Amino acid sequence: MFTLLIHGGSGNISRKTMDEAAEAKHAAVLREALEAGVDILKAGGIALDAVQAAVKVLEDSPLFNAGKGSVYTAAGTHEMDACIMDGRTRDAGAVAGVATVRNPVEAARAVLEHSPHILLTGAAAAQFAADQGVAMVAPEHFFDPFRWQQLQDIIGSDRIELDTPGDEHVPETNQKMGTVGAVARDSNGNLAAATSTGGLTNKKPGRIGDTPITGAGTYAENATCAVSCTGQGEYFMRANVAADIAARMRYGNEPLQEAAKHAIHTTLGGLKGKGGLIALDAQGNFAMPFNTTGMFRGVVSSETEAEVWMFK
Amino acid sequence: MFTLLIHGGSGNISRKTMDEAAEAKHAAVLREALEAGVDILKAGGIALDAVQAAVKVLEDSPLFNAGKGSVYTAAGTHEMDACIMDGRTRDAGAVAGVATVRNPVEAARAVLEHSPHILLTGAAAAQFAADQGVAMVAPEHFFDPFRWQQLQDIIGSDRIELDTPGDEHVPETNQKMGTVGAVARDSNGNLAAATSTGGLTNKKPGRIGDTPITGAGTYAENATCAVSCTGQGEYFMRANVAADIAARMRYGNEPLQEAAKHAIHTTLGGLKGKGGLIALDAQGNFAMPFNTTGMFRGVVSSETEAEVWMFK
Repeated sequence: MFTLLIHGGSGNISRKTMDEAAEAKHAAVLREALEAGVDILKAGGIALDAVQAAVKVLEDSPLFNAGKGSVYTAAGTHEMDACIMDGRTRDAGAVAGVATVRNPVEAARAVLEHSPHILLTGAAAAQFAADQGVAMVAPEHFFDPFRWQQLQDIIGSDRIELDTPGDEHVPETNQKMGTVGAVARDSNGNLAAATSTGGLTNKKPGRIGDTPITGAGTYAENATCAVSCTGQGEYFMRANVAADIAARMRYGNEPLQEAAKHAIHTTLGGLKGKGGLIALDAQGNFAMPFNTTGMFRGVVSSETEAEVWMFK
Repeated sequence: MFTLLIHGGSGNISRKTMDEAAEAKHAAVLREALEAGVDILKAGGIALDAVQAAVKVLEDSPLFNAGKGSVYTAAGTHEMDACIMDGRTRDAGAVAGVATVRNPVEAARAVLEHSPHILLTGAAAAQFAADQGVAMVAPEHFFDPFRWQQLQDIIGSDRIELDTPGDEHVPETNQKMGTVGAVARDSNGNLAAATSTGGLTNKKPGRIGDTPITGAGTYAENATCAVSCTGQGEYFMRANVAADIAARMRYGNEPLQEAAKHAIHTTLGGLKGKGGLIALDAQGNFAMPFNTTGMFRGVVSSETEAEVWMFK
């Protein structure tokens, strides 16, 4: 028995912002990510490898705000963050502010496997990953005319555009959204989580959000849950949203689905934060709550075919 | 009614590692930090200003691993981290990897007050602080022959020396330890927390520990507690130790002292992590648990004179 969930970001995702052609393109990549992860689980692989493989597919797509599709900082650069966490040990690896790593989730995995640290940042993080054999690319790899235009539209202003945007300042043609992530339970009942993001358009250089922070945007612990978040990162950091689900389960005896719902609607919502998450426990119970218009998401398990959704 | 707690790091602190002269020197700085913070509280100031003032005194002392007394990275540089959090709003500011900010806690405060982000890193974080009028210094300001020798003793090895060290590889003459921090409750019942550190001797450049991460090394929320941690940062990050105290109170109905004790001895100890923390609730209950040999710590309140301790 195994289960894999993925997300491609939450935000202003509705029929108004996406036509059928755009929907089909996004759905195809989500299905491809599910397939990459579930192939590993079917073959008896570990949850950690499955979440990494699924996130890698999403990073390689220009449609989602991570890896290839990352948005621009206020300096016209890319600063990508990623984290991966192993529910067996609660050990984790994360990178923040990397510009030259082709797949930030692979750099995070290298930190998990080979560093005594959990979170490495900037050029030093990229260098560590390169030393471990992680593929590097020139910054031009991440150039994208749509993302560039997103920056030009707001550069010089104080606006920082969440790529899981609020309704008020989002062009309806904006069909590229969000952080990406995956959580999995393998056939041995082990959990893992991974999250990757390009952050916010027009964010100040050096900003780190919730994605690479264990307990904020990413969490995995066999005894409770695996979680990957998307949304307004600073709110997830202040409320420790991913760890909040684990805490509700551990101390409040809430079942996973209740805990996940309350983490979004009570904990995050209580601070007026916006976003969503995917969460899974070791029994295969799962939840995908969000308080935005929509969230790119999908699920596949040993008992069920792959399914993907994006609207409410 | 108000209360202020401070710490100057936990670790191998005992009569074996500190003679009476060293004890007196450390105690004098701890008392000076308590005085700086309590002066603000006595004058009706807010908890946020009190923790900042107390941490600033500890940063300015070469005796503690923060600000002036920061340890060296493997590259022979300094990378300092700090965080400050306001229990009224759960808003926070933090910096990581800054090398030229005289008082990192002041840079963290500038992020809290003036940035939409919570955590800024590296040169961009220092630039942001400078733009906000925070005092900068040349890197030479942080040169310290004792810290430099600590690095020379282990550079080229894989050892990363926690400045709150385990017993096995600590010279008994090592009298400079730890992260510093403060938590306060002001006369309006508002809570705040601040933590500042130079990190680990011989840490890889770019490493971020628990100090600047809300919910890991620093936390403040009027409804539960204010917390500042010290110890093996990666364990505090994996277990979200600061937020764990709040979660135990919120979901498990544990009183502050129970929650703080369990966070160190069950949550952190369960991962075999070492360290300590100071914690305070809005009623003025407080705790200062640690699972190391000792912890530099002190407390003062509207009802009690300043007291400082370092051994068990």
